[in-house]
Amino acid sequence: MKALRECSVAVVGLGLMGASLCMDLKAQHLCREVRGVARRTQTVLDAFFAHAVDLATNDLQTGILGADIVILATPVRTIVATIEEIGPRLWPGSLVMDMGSTKADICAAMDLLPAGVQPVGGHPMCGKETAGFEAAECGLYRNAPWVLSPLARTAPEALALAIELAKAVGARPVVLEARRHDRLVASISHLPFLVASALTDAVAQVGAGDPAVWELAAGGFRDTSRVAASDTQMFLDILMTNRAAVIEQVENFEHHLRQLRQLLTQADEPALRQKLSESRTARAEWKKR
Amino acid sequence: MKALRECSVAVVGLGLMGASLCMDLKAQHLCREVRGVARRTQTVLDAFFAHAVDLATNDLQTGILGADIVILATPVRTIVATIEEIGPRLWPGSLVMDMGSTKADICAAMDLLPAGVQPVGGHPMCGKETAGFEAAECGLYRNAPWVLSPLARTAPEALALAIELAKAVGARPVVLEARRHDRLVASISHLPFLVASALTDAVAQVGAGDPAVWELAAGGFRDTSRVAASDTQMFLDILMTNRAAVIEQVENFEHHLRQLRQLLTQADEPALRQKLSESRTARAEWKKR
Repeated sequence: MKALRECSVAVVGLGLMGASLCMDLKAQHLCREVRGVARRTQTVLDAFFAHAVDLATNDLQTGILGADIVILATPVRTIVATIEEIGPRLWPGSLVMDMGSTKADICAAMDLLPAGVQPVGGHPMCGKETAGFEAAECGLYRNAPWVLSPLARTAPEALALAIELAKAVGARPVVLEARRHDRLVASISHLPFLVASALTDAVAQVGAGDPAVWELAAGGFRDTSRVAASDTQMFLDILMTNRAAVIEQVENFEHHLRQLRQLLTQADEPALRQKLSESRTARAEWKKR
Repeated sequence: MKALRECSVAVVGLGLMGASLCMDLKAQHLCREVRGVARRTQTVLDAFFAHAVDLATNDLQTGILGADIVILATPVRTIVATIEEIGPRLWPGSLVMDMGSTKADICAAMDLLPAGVQPVGGHPMCGKETAGFEAAECGLYRNAPWVLSPLARTAPEALALAIELAKAVGARPVVLEARRHDRLVASISHLPFLVASALTDAVAQVGAGDPAVWELAAGGFRDTSRVAASDTQMFLDILMTNRAAVIEQVENFEHHLRQLRQLLTQADEPALRQKLSESRTARAEWKKR
C-alpha cells in the first residue's frame, strides 16, 4: 500500500469528527489530497471555504472515486448503510476506515465488502457534547485513544496504514477486536451517557416542583450531567447497535447504586465509608494514569 | 450590628472553603481582622505564612474570643459539635454562620445557642473535588450561589450582615429555609455524588476483568465520575445528615434510569428518542440560564 503522504483521503461526513480529521490532514499536509463528502450543501460550502478540504461535494460516489483511503464519519447506522452503498465503487486495494462509536455492526458490514478492499474499523475516543462542522477543530485527536478493529481479512499493511494515520494526527492507536471494544465502551462511554440523562431527568422532575433547584446547580451537577447534552441521533445509533452490552452495564451500575442506597437506608456508616473510599481511590488511580 | 468592614471575623476550619474565604477577606481588606482556627498545627502555620489570616491558632476558644462574626467551615457533624461547644463563649450580639453542605441539623443546633447570639445557616455552592488548605484560592466564591438559612430567631440585621459578607466575596446570596435547601441539594449535589461513585464502581468492576477499559476512558467518563473523587468524610457527613432526602432522590433517579433501560430492552426507539431529547433540552436550557 502507499504511504499516507501519497494517499488521496476521502472523509464521508463533515461533523465534529470528520471535519476535525480533515483539518489536521490538510493543515499539516499529511496526505496528498483531502476530500470531504457532506449531505448538506451548506456544510460542503463551509468546509471548502474554511480550507478544511481540497475538494468538497455532496455526491458520495464522486467523492470517493479513486480515493486511496475512505473514512466514514457519520452516525453508526448511516456508516453501515454507506458501506453497503459504496462497496462496488471502491478502488481495489483501497483502505476503508470508519469513526463510528460501536464496532460490531460496522465490522460485520465491512466483512461483506469486495475482496480487493481493505477494511479497518475504528473509533477515536475524543467526542465533545457539541456536534457538527462548527465544533470541528485542529488537534482534536491529540493524545486521544483511537481504537482500531481489523477484520480477519485485513492485511497487515492496511492496519499499518490505519495506525500511521491515527498517529499522524497525534492519537494513540489501540488495537481491539470489535466485540471487545463494544463491551468496554458500553461501560466507559454509553453508560455515562445514560446516567447523565437519567440524572438530568431526576433533577428536572424536582425543578418542576421547585425551580430554585436550578439556582443551586454547581459543578457537581454540571459535570455529572454534561454528556446528556450530546447529540441524540448519534447516541440512538450507538445504543441501538450495542443494546445487549449497554443493558448489561446499566444493570451493573444499578447494582452498585442500589448497594449505596441500601447502606444509607440502614445508616451503615462503616460500610458506606468503605465503599465510598474504594470508589474515590479507583477514580484517583485512573486520573494518575 | 457593625458593618462588615469593622468586624473581627473568625473562620473555624481552614480547608478549601474556610481558607478561600479568609484569603478573599484579607486580600481585599473586607473586614477589620481575619482569624483562622485549624485543628492541625501545620495548617495553622501554612495559613499564617501564606498571609491568608491575620491571626492563626489551633485553640478554638482563643480563636473565637471577641469575634464579631464566627464562621464554621468544617464537615457538617463537626459544625454541629462545635456549635454546642462554643455556645457559652460567644460574644453577645455576634453573628454565627457556617458553610456546611446540609442545613437542618446545623440550624437545629444553632437554635439552641444563647439568646444574645445571632445565627444564620449558610452553604456556598462552589466545591471542588480537591480539598484542604492547599486547594484554597482567592475568588472561589465569585458568582457562586451562597444559600443563607436564617432561623425564626434571627434578627433582620444579622441576615443583612451575612448577605453583605456573601456579596463582598462575589457570591450570589440565595435565602432558603433549611429543609427546603436540604431537599434541593439532595437532588442537585448529593445525588450526582452517589451516581458518580456508582459509575466508578461499575467501570472498576469491568476493569477488574479487562483493564483495557481504563485505556479508553475519555471525557464522558472523566466528567460524569469527577465528583466521586470528593472528600469521603465530608460526603459521609452530608449523606448521614440528609438521609431521607437523598434516598428519595436516588429512588427518583433509579426510576428514570430504569425507564431508559426498559426502552432499550424493548428496542422502543421512538420512545427512547423522545426521552433522550427531553433530557438534552433540559440540560441545554439549564446551561443557558
